[in-house]
Amino acid sequence: MAQEMEKSLLNQHTEKHFTAGEIVRDVIIGVSDGLTVPFALAAGLSGANASSAIILTAGIAEVAAGAISMGLGGYLAAKSEADHYLRELKREQEEIIAVPDTEAAEVAEILSEYGIQPHEYTPVVNALRKNPQAWLDFMMKFELGLEKPNPKRALQSAFTIAIAYIVGGMVPLIPYIFIPIARKAVMASVVLTLLALLIFGYAKGHFTGNKPIRSALQTALIGAIASAAAFGMAKVVQG
Amino acid sequence: MAQEMEKSLLNQHTEKHFTAGEIVRDVIIGVSDGLTVPFALAAGLSGANASSAIILTAGIAEVAAGAISMGLGGYLAAKSEADHYLRELKREQEEIIAVPDTEAAEVAEILSEYGIQPHEYTPVVNALRKNPQAWLDFMMKFELGLEKPNPKRALQSAFTIAIAYIVGGMVPLIPYIFIPIARKAVMASVVLTLLALLIFGYAKGHFTGNKPIRSALQTALIGAIASAAAFGMAKVVQG
Repeated sequence: MAQEMEKSLLNQHTEKHFTAGEIVRDVIIGVSDGLTVPFALAAGLSGANASSAIILTAGIAEVAAGAISMGLGGYLAAKSEADHYLRELKREQEEIIAVPDTEAAEVAEILSEYGIQPHEYTPVVNALRKNPQAWLDFMMKFELGLEKPNPKRALQSAFTIAIAYIVGGMVPLIPYIFIPIARKAVMASVVLTLLALLIFGYAKGHFTGNKPIRSALQTALIGAIASAAAFGMAKVVQG
Repeated sequence: MAQEMEKSLLNQHTEKHFTAGEIVRDVIIGVSDGLTVPFALAAGLSGANASSAIILTAGIAEVAAGAISMGLGGYLAAKSEADHYLRELKREQEEIIAVPDTEAAEVAEILSEYGIQPHEYTPVVNALRKNPQAWLDFMMKFELGLEKPNPKRALQSAFTIAIAYIVGGMVPLIPYIFIPIARKAVMASVVLTLLALLIFGYAKGHFTGNKPIRSALQTALIGAIASAAAFGMAKVVQG
């Protein structure tokens, strides 16, 4: 009866661990840098009087390089985390077999941090000792704070970030395809990118639970600062 | 006596949550992209027959833009996580006051996933109910999996990533400062960057607990693939 009541109370709360959330996070990572860096690079080179042709060459080369660096980098990082999880899993498994008293003491330590007394937590510790698989899961989550990784995520993450970076990066470069005079193309690029940054920033705020308007302005501001820095550095180097 | 034994067994294990680990992670993030993208951009532009001057202009502009995008982007992301934590903390606090039975049911659900029976976990649930602060901490960690963020981290992270990106990015660009003929500078850049990628990849493997030699080769390979892509795209655009 108590368990049924518990279950019905719980139906109102759901764990929000959707893969969709991870895809959104990867899109945000890709588009954030993709919209900002190629835009700033192009704007900086315009200030240094480069032609649209050079700017396009540099911009598209940067987008290709950035997409691969972030995509492959993200893939290897995810793989590395998965390997790390498996190594820690193996180690915990060995510890449970080799030094069960130490592991039991760790469970006790974890629970006692929440003011739970020995006579209250000892039944829990003993229950875990009798169930090695559950004990292992408990240590992975509550001692090490590690989630079991989804094997498909690494590849999915890599592609999502790379494609998001390419899509983001092409937005500021499109004017340079159609407008050969860089000084004119850059104005179109600024308008287009500013708009894209505001819209993307707004959406980002919405998805991450932050104030969308503030997020839109912050995102556009980063783009502005990055391009001012690129512009400034390009002037210094050309100088 | 049992508690003393527990404490002495525990002294052999320590929680590895050093801030140093987070700094290392940020350096890896910054240097990984910093070594790869400016290198690839410069190599790609060399293939498109740009002069060292143009390449340096583009490269340094990209490093400035990238450092700001990653640095400021990382700062805002960390701030956003901190805000998220505070919002979730507030919400849990309200739920503990408003719907304590639901929250107690959640604790029961969490523990029952580890095969712990009601008669075993009920003393723990009741102990938490009597200690709202501990209960709140328990929900934050075990239901939501959220760690309390360090307020200094956001700024520290931003600077670490930005500076790491700049240091990484300057390595492949240095030859172009001293060698005006791009075709010669690029060879020096390739050698220098390859070396840097191998060394950095090795160090990265060491710090992340992955096989260092494999990490070195993977890191160098990403750099090679990224510059091949940049080179290829630059050729395509130059036409």
